[in-house]
Amino acid sequence: MPKAVYLAGPEVFLANAREILDRKIALTRAAGLVPVSPGDLEFPKTASKWELGLAISAIDEKLMNAADAIIANLTPFRGIAADTGTCFELGYMCAQGKAAFAYTNVRADHGTRTKAHFQGVHSVDENGHPRGPDGMMIEDMGFIDNLMLHGGVLNRGGHVVVGDAPPGEELTDMRAFMAVLELAARQPGQACRIQVAAHPFP
Amino acid sequence: MPKAVYLAGPEVFLANAREILDRKIALTRAAGLVPVSPGDLEFPKTASKWELGLAISAIDEKLMNAADAIIANLTPFRGIAADTGTCFELGYMCAQGKAAFAYTNVRADHGTRTKAHFQGVHSVDENGHPRGPDGMMIEDMGFIDNLMLHGGVLNRGGHVVVGDAPPGEELTDMRAFMAVLELAARQPGQACRIQVAAHPFP
Repeated sequence: MPKAVYLAGPEVFLANAREILDRKIALTRAAGLVPVSPGDLEFPKTASKWELGLAISAIDEKLMNAADAIIANLTPFRGIAADTGTCFELGYMCAQGKAAFAYTNVRADHGTRTKAHFQGVHSVDENGHPRGPDGMMIEDMGFIDNLMLHGGVLNRGGHVVVGDAPPGEELTDMRAFMAVLELAARQPGQACRIQVAAHPFP
Repeated sequence: MPKAVYLAGPEVFLANAREILDRKIALTRAAGLVPVSPGDLEFPKTASKWELGLAISAIDEKLMNAADAIIANLTPFRGIAADTGTCFELGYMCAQGKAAFAYTNVRADHGTRTKAHFQGVHSVDENGHPRGPDGMMIEDMGFIDNLMLHGGVLNRGGHVVVGDAPPGEELTDMRAFMAVLELAARQPGQACRIQVAAHPFP
C-alpha cells in the first residue's frame, strides 16, 4: 500500500515555489509514495491576511492528518535554525505516531552553526557544556537541529539525511531529499517505536 | 480539576535556567495550574551526548503526553524566529488536540522581524506579497511567528499574548507569561475546535 507523505519545508516561500514543490511531488511519486504537499488544496477567499493565515494553518493540519508520514526539510532558513513552521509540522506528525523523516542540505550541525552564530566565541561550563558569550548553553550533540527534532525522528525509527548542497542551492538541491525518499519507501508500514498515549509514564 | 500545563520555551538554555524554570513553575502553581516542565525528570546516564539527546527527547515527549495543555514561549531565539524545539513541542501538543497557548516577549511581529532581517530591503510581488532581496516571500499576516504556530493556537480557541520586554530581558520577563497563565486558568476544560482524526477531509 503506497504511503502518503506530507512534504514539509520552507520551499513554499521560494520565488519559484511552484516549480520546486512540483519537483518534490514528482520525485515522491517516482519513489512509489503519494505526495501530500502544502500547496495541494486551494486557499479560500478571506476578508483579511489574518484570516487567510488561519485558514492555511487549518488546511495544512488537515493535509497532515490525512498523511501517513512526514519528510521535513530542516535546512537552516533565514538564520542558523530550521523553518519554524516545518518544526511545528514535524512535531505534529510525531505526536500522531506517524513515520517521520528529515533532511538538511547544510552539512554543519546545530552546535557548529550556533558556535558560528557567536563568531566562534564560547566557553565551557563546569558540566562540559559549551556556552555562548551570553552565557546560554549551546546544544552540541551532533544533531542537525534542536534535539526534539532529530530525536523525534530517530526515536521513531525514522531517518535523518545530511546533505551538502552548493552555496545558493540549499533550498533547491534535491539529492538529500531523494535519499530520504528511498529510505521512506523502504519502510512503508513500519510500526512506530513510540506510541501516543494519554498517560504513558512507566 | 487542575490542568497540567507543559511549559515550553528556550529558558532551558539560560545561564540561570533552573532559577527561571522554577519561577515559571511557581507562577503556574499560583495560577491554579499544574506545571509540567522540561527539567522535571532526571536524565539517565548515557554513554554519549548523542544518546543523551535522544533520551531527553523521549522524556520531554512523555512529559507532553502526560500534560493537558501547553504554554509555548515563542520569543525569538538566536535570530528572528522562535526556538525550533519549542515549535516542535507546540505542534506536538496541537496534534494531540490539547489546549494550546503561546506568548512572545518581543512586540515586533514575524513580518516586521523578517523585513528587518533583510535591512528593510524588500519588494512587493504581483499578488501583493512582500519578498526579500532573495526573492523569497515574507509572511506578514500580523502573526508572532510562522502561521502554523499562531494559527495552531488560535484555531483551537487558545490565546496568544504579545509582550514587550525591556532589551536584555526577552527570555526572563514574566509579564506576558503571567497573562497567558491567567487565560489558561480560565478555560480549564475547554473542548478544542479542531479534533485529530485519521482522515478528516470533508
